[in-house]
Amino acid sequence: MTATLDDESYARAALTYLAEPGDVTLGALIRACGAARTLAGIKAGSVGDVAPAGLSGLSGPVRAAAVRAMRRWQVRLPEVPPAEEVAGACRAGIRLVCPDDPEWPGQLADLGDAQPYALWLRGSADLRFSCLRSVAIVGSRAASAYGSYVASEFAASVAARGWAVVSGGAYGVDAAAHRGAIGAEGVTVAVLACGVDVPYPAGHRDLLDAVAAQGVVVSEWPPGRNATRLRFLVRNRVIAALAPGTLVVEAGRRSGALNSARHARDLNRALMAVPGPITSDLSAGCHHIIREWQGTLVTSAAEVIECLSPVAAAPGESQLAPRRAASAVLNRDELDPETAAVLDALPSRGGMGPGRIAHRAGFDPATVVRCLGTLAAGGFAERCEQGWRLRRA
Amino acid sequence: MTATLDDESYARAALTYLAEPGDVTLGALIRACGAARTLAGIKAGSVGDVAPAGLSGLSGPVRAAAVRAMRRWQVRLPEVPPAEEVAGACRAGIRLVCPDDPEWPGQLADLGDAQPYALWLRGSADLRFSCLRSVAIVGSRAASAYGSYVASEFAASVAARGWAVVSGGAYGVDAAAHRGAIGAEGVTVAVLACGVDVPYPAGHRDLLDAVAAQGVVVSEWPPGRNATRLRFLVRNRVIAALAPGTLVVEAGRRSGALNSARHARDLNRALMAVPGPITSDLSAGCHHIIREWQGTLVTSAAEVIECLSPVAAAPGESQLAPRRAASAVLNRDELDPETAAVLDALPSRGGMGPGRIAHRAGFDPATVVRCLGTLAAGGFAERCEQGWRLRRA
Repeated sequence: MTATLDDESYARAALTYLAEPGDVTLGALIRACGAARTLAGIKAGSVGDVAPAGLSGLSGPVRAAAVRAMRRWQVRLPEVPPAEEVAGACRAGIRLVCPDDPEWPGQLADLGDAQPYALWLRGSADLRFSCLRSVAIVGSRAASAYGSYVASEFAASVAARGWAVVSGGAYGVDAAAHRGAIGAEGVTVAVLACGVDVPYPAGHRDLLDAVAAQGVVVSEWPPGRNATRLRFLVRNRVIAALAPGTLVVEAGRRSGALNSARHARDLNRALMAVPGPITSDLSAGCHHIIREWQGTLVTSAAEVIECLSPVAAAPGESQLAPRRAASAVLNRDELDPETAAVLDALPSRGGMGPGRIAHRAGFDPATVVRCLGTLAAGGFAERCEQGWRLRRA
Repeated sequence: MTATLDDESYARAALTYLAEPGDVTLGALIRACGAARTLAGIKAGSVGDVAPAGLSGLSGPVRAAAVRAMRRWQVRLPEVPPAEEVAGACRAGIRLVCPDDPEWPGQLADLGDAQPYALWLRGSADLRFSCLRSVAIVGSRAASAYGSYVASEFAASVAARGWAVVSGGAYGVDAAAHRGAIGAEGVTVAVLACGVDVPYPAGHRDLLDAVAAQGVVVSEWPPGRNATRLRFLVRNRVIAALAPGTLVVEAGRRSGALNSARHARDLNRALMAVPGPITSDLSAGCHHIIREWQGTLVTSAAEVIECLSPVAAAPGESQLAPRRAASAVLNRDELDPETAAVLDALPSRGGMGPGRIAHRAGFDPATVVRCLGTLAAGGFAERCEQGWRLRRA
């Protein structure tokens, strides 16, 4: 968010230029020595400069792997822009988020040394708040009409209940999921395998702009980088890690969506799949998830939310229970001033449209819509027939 | 099978005229005192005649229930035909099978006092052998093209592997399942909610005749009785009990097929369901079975057989393992002389068509086809590209 970068943040930004994401050797170095020292060591071409022998937290094999990786990382040193340029990108609507920043999604720590060095973001929504109550909806690029319809309906329905929709910005199921959430005026998160400023696929330039306007576009790669086949697979672990659960809508047996599903399973996230006709190859991956990976078969958005809210299954608990649970982990003091002001403007009963809330809070409607997304994701606000209102405690 | 009836068998036949099937009070009386004594007691109008006070095996509440039921059972006494007439029905292609008969499926004992008093059969296949390796395929009467296709394909595929298909003779999924098995020259069992001589539904007269020609039509009701709504539900427990597993192909949330599925679950039989589009109400029952009743999602006939053959899942075991296991429980000495002769005529390698086998065994082809069904169900014979051959030990 900040237009000037501290040394650690700049070093993390620089490392996203030097190394492909998910490099566990680099991750271990950063964990043990910090990003600034790791960057300095790479510039000097010496692991000894990064981590003097005997330093705790760096095992012998990691040390040896780092020595071997040094040349690989150094190759891209000329591509690293100076700090002013990184700061300039941030002023141009792109922001850098690092593990110590308030917007960093702490659940990425589940990825261990494979967690992103930093994230590049473009968009209005707060990534951490958005992902707290979110579901990843993924599936085949070559979705059928059935798959597109289901993805869009489920996304719209969970978004209308204040859950963000995380997906990959691709054709097919991903696009339908993003569009469904946007259509319901919900928050959606697109995690790309290229720079957040790269319109890929080209046909999704407008869609990605719409995601940025109402949610957030995320990447581990720095601005300008292009997507490659391998990068999609590396990216999938971030989609699975960001959301408490992953829903596969339609996927062939060899679809990349099964890769996301496996990550979700390995990360102990909820794993769900939508069944389809057994005569459709595009549902074979979903059936595999249910049969072999103990994925939960879901047939409605309500079942998705039930799966993500175990507390709701307790006898006597209403569907609202999980929202209370979610809001309990968020502190009102953590809200930014604009969002806190919108929260104050919300009615406790009835409901109010974004226009009236904007008038009451003294902001423009776009700001209010963004803040409402954050408040819904944080469990403070809920949508109702008349508009928006405070979530009942 | 026999054209003359012993007293117990005649009494059981008579009881199928007097009481609706599944009457646990009558079941308890028969268990404690035998069918002949129970029938005599009903004729005398006295429970004391059936079960003198203090008789073991008859609890006070059952005794009281029997006193109350006496008048209900007596009402139909005039409908009971004399023994000669029952024997005549048997000569006309209908046979009565009672718990002590070789053809009685012993697994019906799992129904406890609700097990059938006797079964009326019409058809060429041996009921007990057929059901040993069988799967019940049930579903909606108003099946979609998808449901009919899947039922027919699965039935043909399991039948071709020597598994009998049990169903209820109704329109929709039932009919498709019977037809699939018949088309694959397999054995199929239709369990009706009316007499085995009653063509119900009327449009299935030819289908039921075809089932009888290649398999067997079964009923708990005596010849001539019509189907009623309640009888379908009572009948369902027999479908579930006869087969080691029940597969629901397509069923709405209120379909009678869910009643069969519940029986299968309660009887500890394997319960399976075919998924379908979540946009189809006809698959909602199947999804309910998978989500709420821990039914196994299956997408192919191979998965159905795998589910019914737990031993096949053991590492290193081939798909043939369960067949060996099944054949081990059958004794070659239990085969009737014709079937044993056909078994002797089978080649051990290669394969032979029914015509050549008939020539070798000295029987007509229809007899050979019936015997091959029994041999396949018993695990003695298997279909191959060239026709039929001995199952490898």
